[in-house]
Amino acid sequence: MAETPYDPQNIFAKILRGEIPSHRVYEDQSVVAFMDVMPQGPGHTLVVPKAPSRNLLDADPAALGPLLKAVQKVALAVRKAFEADGVTILQFNEPASGQTVYHLHIHVIPRFEGIALKPHTGVMEKPEVLADDADKIRKALV
Amino acid sequence: MAETPYDPQNIFAKILRGEIPSHRVYEDQSVVAFMDVMPQGPGHTLVVPKAPSRNLLDADPAALGPLLKAVQKVALAVRKAFEADGVTILQFNEPASGQTVYHLHIHVIPRFEGIALKPHTGVMEKPEVLADDADKIRKALV
Repeated sequence: MAETPYDPQNIFAKILRGEIPSHRVYEDQSVVAFMDVMPQGPGHTLVVPKAPSRNLLDADPAALGPLLKAVQKVALAVRKAFEADGVTILQFNEPASGQTVYHLHIHVIPRFEGIALKPHTGVMEKPEVLADDADKIRKALV
Repeated sequence: MAETPYDPQNIFAKILRGEIPSHRVYEDQSVVAFMDVMPQGPGHTLVVPKAPSRNLLDADPAALGPLLKAVQKVALAVRKAFEADGVTILQFNEPASGQTVYHLHIHVIPRFEGIALKPHTGVMEKPEVLADDADKIRKALV
């Protein structure tokens, strides 16, 4: 199966390069985490490797350890920051799976008893809400 | 927040110890992958670290690199085996997130254009179907 090539003009690549602003909560040598601007719930964070790949299928295996370790850190932080009952991890590969931005990213979503995930409505969260949520998560990461 | 302790009598621990049969597709030093007996679609596979943890939140970070590398291998194999258009990766932490077995596991689910994931109905797939699907995935892993 021919792979679709990586497009360096995708929105997450632009965020990684600082060409588009984001509400960053975490960064290390290989990973950046920032708020999803269309959250499926409060505290919905994306963990994104700096290395370019379209998704998990074409990622360099060497990037995967640091990525999942960062996901764990962010998951613990969002649970603490939002006093969540659980955390859902989602990762979509290709349009049939619901992928819409073609740079590998992992969704980390705080969950609460009896509250379903909101669908991806395409509605942007207010920047002040995202800034406030990002601040809570950064404090929980310390 | 107090962590609920790991229960070594959970069903995946029993599968890892060979006390309960499973349709295994992959095994390495740190990970086992086998068919989900209540698949949300054909080829639904679970990737499970051998090291005990309740979920991602209490996992040893050292186990996470080998785990996600195995998930990538299995994702590529199920895509090939089922000629899938995409692959969905899911990982649930705690009941509020939909976790039902308390040993860390990652769902790898082949996806097809226009076909939604089946809900977790609790209906067991026929063993002969699972055996046949596992065989396809094993061949795609070679």
